[in-house]
Amino acid sequence: MADKIYRVDMTALKATIEDVPEEWIGIGGRGLTSTVVAKEVKPTCHPLGKYNKLVFAPGMLSGTSCANSGRFSAGAKSPLTKGIKEASAGGTACVSLVKLGVKAIIIEGMPEKEGYFGIHIDKAGITIKEETELVGKGNYESIKTLMARLGDKIGVIIIGPAGEMRLSAANISVRDPQGNIRSFGRGGLGAVMGAKKIKFISIDDTDAPGTDLVDKQKFMDAGKTFAKLLSSHPLAQGLKAYSTNIMINILNEAGALPTKDFRYGQYEEHEKVSGETMAEIIKSRNGKPSHACHRGCVIQCSQVFNDKDENYVTSGFEYETIWGLSAHSGISDMDINAQADRIMDDVGIDSIEGVQAIGLAVEAGLIEYGDAEGALRLLREIGEGTPLGRIIGSGAAQFGQIYGLTRVAATKGQAFAAYDPRSIKGLGITLATSPMGADHTAGYAVAQNILKLGTFVDPLKKDGQVDLSRQMQIITAWLDCTGLCEFVLLAMAEHMDVMVPNVVDMLNARHGSSLTMEDLNNIGVKVLKTEHEFNLAAGFNSAHDRLPEFFEEALPPHNTTWDFTEEEIDAFWNF
Amino acid sequence: MADKIYRVDMTALKATIEDVPEEWIGIGGRGLTSTVVAKEVKPTCHPLGKYNKLVFAPGMLSGTSCANSGRFSAGAKSPLTKGIKEASAGGTACVSLVKLGVKAIIIEGMPEKEGYFGIHIDKAGITIKEETELVGKGNYESIKTLMARLGDKIGVIIIGPAGEMRLSAANISVRDPQGNIRSFGRGGLGAVMGAKKIKFISIDDTDAPGTDLVDKQKFMDAGKTFAKLLSSHPLAQGLKAYSTNIMINILNEAGALPTKDFRYGQYEEHEKVSGETMAEIIKSRNGKPSHACHRGCVIQCSQVFNDKDENYVTSGFEYETIWGLSAHSGISDMDINAQADRIMDDVGIDSIEGVQAIGLAVEAGLIEYGDAEGALRLLREIGEGTPLGRIIGSGAAQFGQIYGLTRVAATKGQAFAAYDPRSIKGLGITLATSPMGADHTAGYAVAQNILKLGTFVDPLKKDGQVDLSRQMQIITAWLDCTGLCEFVLLAMAEHMDVMVPNVVDMLNARHGSSLTMEDLNNIGVKVLKTEHEFNLAAGFNSAHDRLPEFFEEALPPHNTTWDFTEEEIDAFWNF
Repeated sequence: MADKIYRVDMTALKATIEDVPEEWIGIGGRGLTSTVVAKEVKPTCHPLGKYNKLVFAPGMLSGTSCANSGRFSAGAKSPLTKGIKEASAGGTACVSLVKLGVKAIIIEGMPEKEGYFGIHIDKAGITIKEETELVGKGNYESIKTLMARLGDKIGVIIIGPAGEMRLSAANISVRDPQGNIRSFGRGGLGAVMGAKKIKFISIDDTDAPGTDLVDKQKFMDAGKTFAKLLSSHPLAQGLKAYSTNIMINILNEAGALPTKDFRYGQYEEHEKVSGETMAEIIKSRNGKPSHACHRGCVIQCSQVFNDKDENYVTSGFEYETIWGLSAHSGISDMDINAQADRIMDDVGIDSIEGVQAIGLAVEAGLIEYGDAEGALRLLREIGEGTPLGRIIGSGAAQFGQIYGLTRVAATKGQAFAAYDPRSIKGLGITLATSPMGADHTAGYAVAQNILKLGTFVDPLKKDGQVDLSRQMQIITAWLDCTGLCEFVLLAMAEHMDVMVPNVVDMLNARHGSSLTMEDLNNIGVKVLKTEHEFNLAAGFNSAHDRLPEFFEEALPPHNTTWDFTEEEIDAFWNF
Repeated sequence: MADKIYRVDMTALKATIEDVPEEWIGIGGRGLTSTVVAKEVKPTCHPLGKYNKLVFAPGMLSGTSCANSGRFSAGAKSPLTKGIKEASAGGTACVSLVKLGVKAIIIEGMPEKEGYFGIHIDKAGITIKEETELVGKGNYESIKTLMARLGDKIGVIIIGPAGEMRLSAANISVRDPQGNIRSFGRGGLGAVMGAKKIKFISIDDTDAPGTDLVDKQKFMDAGKTFAKLLSSHPLAQGLKAYSTNIMINILNEAGALPTKDFRYGQYEEHEKVSGETMAEIIKSRNGKPSHACHRGCVIQCSQVFNDKDENYVTSGFEYETIWGLSAHSGISDMDINAQADRIMDDVGIDSIEGVQAIGLAVEAGLIEYGDAEGALRLLREIGEGTPLGRIIGSGAAQFGQIYGLTRVAATKGQAFAAYDPRSIKGLGITLATSPMGADHTAGYAVAQNILKLGTFVDPLKKDGQVDLSRQMQIITAWLDCTGLCEFVLLAMAEHMDVMVPNVVDMLNARHGSSLTMEDLNNIGVKVLKTEHEFNLAAGFNSAHDRLPEFFEEALPPHNTTWDFTEEEIDAFWNF
């Protein structure tokens, strides 16, 4: 069965199932969401208005047995950055969509009357129904209710109260295999879904046709090598043992762990919040130190974090969130930080924006550095919809604007996470130039700057960083089309000669295409340029590819500064 | 004595008095502030950071006997629009600066330690002193205290609590001849002054050298004709009798009075808040229906508005403020509106942003349309520094962002005032294209669209509007260099052939220059282009010259829409 486009008109409250246009056949994931947004969304439209569109698209390898391929993309014009946005998530919905032959969901328009809606997709098609029960409810309760209503195998794409409130940092969450939460974190896409009055999309793949493979043997052969290299990579094993939070000690050691709102590169209490400490805590409480966010994940960087009484608190508890609460805001109590993570997941807020705002609340004098209860109180205000909650839920840049702060680490309106650009300069170029706004995942030069994977580019020097970031952004752009997890890049950086051909082979074996490695690179280039062009038409220019001026201060311990000239940065786009 | 540049380094807390560079000799007011900002301020700098500069410059005719010439300009990179900003104000400080030979004050840097400062300028020079008594105080009390401290003839440039809080819509106020308040209203320049930790600048012109005229007779001749044509113009007389609020009935009649957040073009209760009604109220309470904001003003559009017990409430009570509280927010009680105006003057907030935010608070469901006490309560929160007060004090666009609204009338982050662009299309082009962001004073095509001064351009049609707006923006740009009040334009529009030569003659007679009418036009062109170029380098492009998409809705009673194509708007810059 040929894949279809599911197009939802929220003005008319009608859905249609369309054939895939010729030019979209060979693309998926980020490539498809960005192509649709660039083609169908007016760049100057209001992100929360009827002309914006919200697009979901599984990757080109999603739904197959390929390791770590179960991620999909969400795209729209971002209410946070005002540019194009793609965010990626795991969970169970992606694979179900592929099995049902859904190439993409394109949601357009917005209802004229009050009220929220739920969308359901199954073998029979797609329906839109008014939803009242879940309105105003947090993600944990909503997902539980939906599972009770529709069965515990359903895929769920959902917004919390933050999305309903159309807060600029609202995320879109998905159900993980255990009924817990993963998210399309960045760029405020939850506000777009909230503006379109969609509380959730549920997906039931019962009796779905499933995933075809054009050349099964070829696929299995490539997939096997790929999975082996991936799962045996030391860093994949480290992520499995210590979650993404393995980075706390690594970044602290590198002197690039932003501390006290980017004043220092090392955090005295790093041991208290490290991945190693976290794994010990988890194990001692009968939690799970490793956990897959989707079937087929061999890295399993997620976890189940229980409290002292062994009750579930959170999962998908990431390094960036922990950094923002600890080094950035001074809270070294992992129980508090887990609670904070849960609050943000439940209300439906990008935890990077949330924790960055907490650090800025310290800057603004609302709480002291290290005020754990204060931080929880502030995060709870998001769900209460207080003015302060709304400010925090609007993200770090908005918080800085409302409180008149200058020390705000954000580009294009989106907050930095746990990496100081002055001492990881390749990543700094990514933070400056990515069409997504500051997004460490858009070109994770940490791999070469700090982890020395494949090659080493001195993180403290400017040499080679623009080229490195460009290369990483192009690779990431095509990788985001495949549905493969970002962390594939870490192993791939050391095995480009084998793993990239593996991906090419799997794509061709899945779809009957005849892609080459060069084609893959060209896809990455095209995606990046498409996004960049949308942004220029939306009102960006090179002035937006700049880091905040406070990065001219020297960062201890290396006393490095952000010293790229404008010309050096702008050379990024020469390709 | 040659004029001097007073340069204040707030980092070193030192001031120097410099000769005027050759290239600045022939310019003043907006021409000078925009030239200095464009030359000395990095376009991508943080508006509240140490690299921004705050510039004050009297007009080229200020300090003379020329009617309505006592206005000066303030300029900086705006924390509201993120582009270049010039705002103009009357009051007493301007003339005192001219008498003391101060061509401009350029304030740069920012103190590294806590605390606020007061700057004093007099015949002996300029001093910077730490200020504690006035910190946190409202403008009324501060001005009173400064008059008690320094005499009741001093000029005062001051910020209220809003500026201290670095709110994006904070204004800078000046003392009027009676010790009341006028303001550099727009663009959040008060936040820049607050970031530089300057509470006030006081100016004492005792024994100042005064203003030289190179050719006194020529000056007097031109000035006499000019003043006569100005003061005898029917609209000048209307402004004198009914304040700027004369526009309520005119705009209502024209069907372009934005009502209920720009849903309608007429307001049922317009009579209750009209200029005519206001004049009656003022007279019945022993107030002053007309009052000059600076010596030499023959229009006297200000007033003294007393309460029922004949106690002073406010002055400089403008049409735009009254519109925003009444038609926009539904409050038709002039006593409430006067109190609201006083609160905003006292806390130091741009009343256009303030009242627009009140209308948006209605949109957001925080108060009902017409909730007078609710509006006062919200405005009081600004001074209390509550999160909601900070949101309101950050202006309409920020309010819309935090509350997830789409119906927000703003361009480049700056709110519209009391004119609907769909039914005054020439003004719409100004709101879209002005480098200042939405600013009706930047090219007041209302003169030709509605008031039919000099010529008539049908306000409901697109024809001729781009050319009209361009012509008005160029004239306004050079007029803002002279220190002449905006309202001079109204009479001038009907007497271009006499009043423009008058201005040329006065400028030449004052400075010994040999300007022509063409030179004046070229100055206007240069100012506009300088500002536009700064904005492009600061991160703007043509996508920022767009009105919000909700203006595609038809506006009753004419059912006009905003129907310019992007190409038509962009043609504005073809000169």
